[in-house]
Amino acid sequence: MTSDRPIYLDHNATTPLLPEVVDAMLPYLREHFGNPSSGHVYGRRARDAVENARTQVATLIGAAPEEIVFTSGGTEANNLAILGVAKMPGRARHVVTSVIEHPATAEPCCWLQRQGWTVAWLPVDRAGRVRADDVAGALAEQRAALVSVMHANNETGVIQSIADVARAARDAETLFHTDAAQSLGKIAVRVNDLGVDLLSIAGHKLYAPKGVGALYVRKGVGIERVVYGAGHERGLRPGTENVASIVGLGTACAIAHATLADESARQRRLRDLLWERICAAVPDVAINGDPFERLPNTLNLRFPGVRATELLARTPGIAASTGSACHEGGESPSAVLTAMGLDADTALGSVRLSLGRRTTEDEVVRCASVLSVAWHSIRRQASLLSLRRVSEASCATSYLLVEPPAR
Amino acid sequence: MTSDRPIYLDHNATTPLLPEVVDAMLPYLREHFGNPSSGHVYGRRARDAVENARTQVATLIGAAPEEIVFTSGGTEANNLAILGVAKMPGRARHVVTSVIEHPATAEPCCWLQRQGWTVAWLPVDRAGRVRADDVAGALAEQRAALVSVMHANNETGVIQSIADVARAARDAETLFHTDAAQSLGKIAVRVNDLGVDLLSIAGHKLYAPKGVGALYVRKGVGIERVVYGAGHERGLRPGTENVASIVGLGTACAIAHATLADESARQRRLRDLLWERICAAVPDVAINGDPFERLPNTLNLRFPGVRATELLARTPGIAASTGSACHEGGESPSAVLTAMGLDADTALGSVRLSLGRRTTEDEVVRCASVLSVAWHSIRRQASLLSLRRVSEASCATSYLLVEPPAR
Repeated sequence: MTSDRPIYLDHNATTPLLPEVVDAMLPYLREHFGNPSSGHVYGRRARDAVENARTQVATLIGAAPEEIVFTSGGTEANNLAILGVAKMPGRARHVVTSVIEHPATAEPCCWLQRQGWTVAWLPVDRAGRVRADDVAGALAEQRAALVSVMHANNETGVIQSIADVARAARDAETLFHTDAAQSLGKIAVRVNDLGVDLLSIAGHKLYAPKGVGALYVRKGVGIERVVYGAGHERGLRPGTENVASIVGLGTACAIAHATLADESARQRRLRDLLWERICAAVPDVAINGDPFERLPNTLNLRFPGVRATELLARTPGIAASTGSACHEGGESPSAVLTAMGLDADTALGSVRLSLGRRTTEDEVVRCASVLSVAWHSIRRQASLLSLRRVSEASCATSYLLVEPPAR
Repeated sequence: MTSDRPIYLDHNATTPLLPEVVDAMLPYLREHFGNPSSGHVYGRRARDAVENARTQVATLIGAAPEEIVFTSGGTEANNLAILGVAKMPGRARHVVTSVIEHPATAEPCCWLQRQGWTVAWLPVDRAGRVRADDVAGALAEQRAALVSVMHANNETGVIQSIADVARAARDAETLFHTDAAQSLGKIAVRVNDLGVDLLSIAGHKLYAPKGVGALYVRKGVGIERVVYGAGHERGLRPGTENVASIVGLGTACAIAHATLADESARQRRLRDLLWERICAAVPDVAINGDPFERLPNTLNLRFPGVRATELLARTPGIAASTGSACHEGGESPSAVLTAMGLDADTALGSVRLSLGRRTTEDEVVRCASVLSVAWHSIRRQASLLSLRRVSEASCATSYLLVEPPAR
């Protein structure tokens, strides 16, 4: 743990590529450089690699290979799902989503609003969960083209009851999309168990490279393109396929498929150890979000009486996230946390610690210790400062008392 | 030269990554995996790498770094340019483009047409060139939001007089976009010399990876996003930056910048040697497109009396392209070649040979020999076949003559 190479507990922001993923990619960055559209052997090799990866991705989510469309990442996958459905002729000009979605879902919905669509932004409860009844209620009130609710929240790790929410959509004969960027590779994500029509995948949250993702499109679900060009990806996503990264995504999915249960259990154990240690050292620290329906790697904590930015500034040996958006020097509380009913100060005291495949028990123990020491140090300074302020205030008052009246 | 590893003369389809490019990417696929949006040191390293690459790309085209927007490739760059301009409020609902554009330009224009816009599809002359006068004429006839003409054609390598065309657009106070996917790294591409407002870059045509590209947006030119999400790339292109591939693109641009003149001259010499050899061996073979205003690496040839698909099927030791689109077993002539006035049969006899940085003189000499031998063999068989047909026809006739009349 050095400030040059701090303990990385920010896996919900991005993950390191697995060495096996890099190894699988390298031949496609070196010798097998062909364009999958080419008829010659260079093209065929690239095409075969893309199709093999398509099967690997499909296998992880229990889909058919032809239901997978490769994209440039999770953001494009969400756009293709939401705008792709919206662009189909004859759709009801209304979308149902939640207030805690990632900008990659919220912003396409906002764009639809600017085009005259209506959007129902469903609330979450204090545990950070969307209620399936609210979805059913919204759909009973107004027919929608699409319901989009994320599988697991990036900040809190809270897992939504997607199967229930999707059933409410299906009962109302409405298409259902989920952004599985944060859940895939951390918990089981099976399209038929979830009952989803569209599901977004982001490579770099899954130990695959940045710049690649995929959209699952259930067979029979019609969507339009959002980017126009040649006929790649069954006409849904033009542009020469990002072969090496697609191979990386496929490999990451195959590894996730093979190791999901063990790795989830390992990370959950470490995450809970981290919580126990911090809990024992920091009075009144608390978990944000549902304590059970949470990703096994995510711990979003509210530290009492401190700013999370200050806490992390004091702990350069830990790479984590405040979960708050910084706006040109200012600081605004996380919209996800305030949507869950936290007041601004509490939200600003929250830190997201997200573990990963390389996280060790030693790192977790050190992290708990470092954060606790930093928290106590800030609190102690704050106490001293407020004591000094009281004392300075007294002096000033005394001084004023002896000062002759102003003329 | 084996059928497993044929001589690669299809660099206009895609290029092998330079070893230096792979080497530059590897640290960002391995240790420096951070998300550029993260505040910690992992994020800062990734952010610095992206900004360094932005400067490298800008330097190659004579732009400022802040005028570069990274995308997922050339297709997305063209979409962002064309639809990004079209989406700005108050634009004239008309676009001027040419009939020989890549689908990544033509298809967004077609989409605009379906939304009620009009598009002027300008013709090309027999040399494959758009006339600046035609652009001026089209703009005099109808005010347009944008003119988009490609810098160099992917099939013929013909280079457009972009400076003249762009001047015609500027004179009519119309924004001008060029797709420089094929020209960048092969000839000088300087945004101020060309006078363009928007310019598209595709990494994989430039010895950088697939799945990365860029759009140059001249300072002061307003465009809208086409994909919606978080505020990356000055709000113009959301999604976590594809750091390793962006680093690869930057490195490829730096290498192109340093070696452009020498490498262009070398490839031109080899290309002309290839032409001389084929020309000497194949009677009536001819070059498609302007013989002078052509990319130094590209040779699009029409071979008389053969189908290009058959010629390439007979030469598995060469990886090249017919330039024709195959549609489910059928074959249609290249729209670019027919737009230049070639009849369908001539277009279907055309082969694109595109050289690259690794192409050697030995490869070129062998390619010329192999193609010539194959051409002669096809022609000889065709002659024998037609002789046999004549002879069989005669036999049949004789047979009929001696046959007793049918009852």
